[in-house]
Amino acid sequence: MSLIAVGTIAFDSIKTPVGQADRVVGGAASYICLAASHFVKKQNLISVIGEDFPQEFLKELKSRGVDQNGLKLIEGGKSFFWEGSYHDDLIKRDTLLTELNVLEGWSPVVPDEAKNTEFVMLGNLDPSIQTSVLNQMSIKPRLVVLDTMNFWMDIAMDNLKSVISRVNVLMINDDEARQLSGENSLINAAKEIHKLGPETVVIKKGEHGALMFENNKKFFTPAYPLDKVVDPTGAGDTFAGGFIGLLASKNSTGWQEKKQAIVAGAVLASFTCEAFGTKRLAELTTNDWQERVKNLQEMSRVEPLFL
Amino acid sequence: MSLIAVGTIAFDSIKTPVGQADRVVGGAASYICLAASHFVKKQNLISVIGEDFPQEFLKELKSRGVDQNGLKLIEGGKSFFWEGSYHDDLIKRDTLLTELNVLEGWSPVVPDEAKNTEFVMLGNLDPSIQTSVLNQMSIKPRLVVLDTMNFWMDIAMDNLKSVISRVNVLMINDDEARQLSGENSLINAAKEIHKLGPETVVIKKGEHGALMFENNKKFFTPAYPLDKVVDPTGAGDTFAGGFIGLLASKNSTGWQEKKQAIVAGAVLASFTCEAFGTKRLAELTTNDWQERVKNLQEMSRVEPLFL
Repeated sequence: MSLIAVGTIAFDSIKTPVGQADRVVGGAASYICLAASHFVKKQNLISVIGEDFPQEFLKELKSRGVDQNGLKLIEGGKSFFWEGSYHDDLIKRDTLLTELNVLEGWSPVVPDEAKNTEFVMLGNLDPSIQTSVLNQMSIKPRLVVLDTMNFWMDIAMDNLKSVISRVNVLMINDDEARQLSGENSLINAAKEIHKLGPETVVIKKGEHGALMFENNKKFFTPAYPLDKVVDPTGAGDTFAGGFIGLLASKNSTGWQEKKQAIVAGAVLASFTCEAFGTKRLAELTTNDWQERVKNLQEMSRVEPLFL
Repeated sequence: MSLIAVGTIAFDSIKTPVGQADRVVGGAASYICLAASHFVKKQNLISVIGEDFPQEFLKELKSRGVDQNGLKLIEGGKSFFWEGSYHDDLIKRDTLLTELNVLEGWSPVVPDEAKNTEFVMLGNLDPSIQTSVLNQMSIKPRLVVLDTMNFWMDIAMDNLKSVISRVNVLMINDDEARQLSGENSLINAAKEIHKLGPETVVIKKGEHGALMFENNKKFFTPAYPLDKVVDPTGAGDTFAGGFIGLLASKNSTGWQEKKQAIVAGAVLASFTCEAFGTKRLAELTTNDWQERVKNLQEMSRVEPLFL
């Protein structure tokens, strides 16, 4: 099964306690497409770039089956740029500069051939753009996954809630789940978020792993433990791309497969954290991530406690 | 197998965002003994109390097989008292008052009949007291578990490191693991702590679960997710008591059993968080905790991801 990936394609300048990187390729859709490409052979990328964006990266995506008919190139335009600096805990970060550039005024266009795609990943982006993509679909997709962040809760809550009501899976981090629901307990937060529409709620907790809720079912995976985190930027996007990529490759929206998809997402995200930008994720071999999947599954495996 | 439980028996006054409790029974050993009593039929409690301590609680412990020959009663003395207040996150807390009372100048005495006990739980306490208990043993115990906290790292690091070098399992929380090792990554922290002596390192992460490291093996359990946390005081002690209690009951120090012991500890700790003091842990039925063990194991169970 193919999938649609919507999100930014951008440049990032990033400072972390272990180093810094200047104008590396980033953006939610870059990570989503690279991650999903480990599972699916065909994707449609919906995004926008300026003339300054490197052909090399686009070729890399193309070689991985990422169709770019939905990628708008603005002649003379500059690509979206984000600059940020992480605190010592490698979780908190300050945004130093955001240049919307070509993102400003962009209306996404879903190519005709992609309008009946059954798996849709709405990467973190203005909820009105996420809505516009859904409005252009000719079918009701089997699975729409939406990733978002507190920024949109602060400035566009109504639009955000409106698009959330139309998706199957909402992915947010723990603080955002608390902000969106007004509940401190993540169990209660998930219950409140279910009421907004999504039947599945995935709560990302960074180094502490991820929780998934669906009806009365719960699943938890630890994060893959790392010796050294270089840069967590894009880890959440990678997680999302791995999650939907695995489900699309299995052509399934079942609970068993969703659990496996969470594990796949967590493992891919661990690689993203090991270098600045998309570098580590792009060079990854199948062997690399399969080894970590095995390790991570072993880490959580325990014989039932005989009672 | 029986076990020795060393730790405080105390009164706590506690304020949390959801309420408060005045002079409830607490102290590390109270929680350890109650938790372990779900698994072992015989324990030796090593602690000290004043004349103000309620007979009722001691009777409760006795009915659970907790031998009190090592419990010193100081006539006319007042029991150890702690008063604290939790922040909104239910993790950070401020100590408002500590009255050492009978704890001051107390030297623990291991009763003769307990000196050959094979499972020893050194609850959070002055490391010199933990050391004294080890010095009194007539055999080298099969498994010594030590729980401690940052307070002892701040004021008694040398004594602490000395007793740590003599134990098999060290239990601390994630911040403390970083403080003790000087390493930010918990993987590297565990490696450094192994070098101090303990072959097994258990890192408690509160609502995020617990990690266990032994040689190159790792195990992770989520915390049991709760709708409502009333008071986390004693959760770590309960976790420790459940852990060593399960191992003693299985008469094992093997990796498989340690993994099950971590799950048992996490489940029992979840009950402690549901009420002030030892109340919830004391009224717990076997059915209650077995149900949660089943749920928690189900939460982490995923079919191997076919590759």
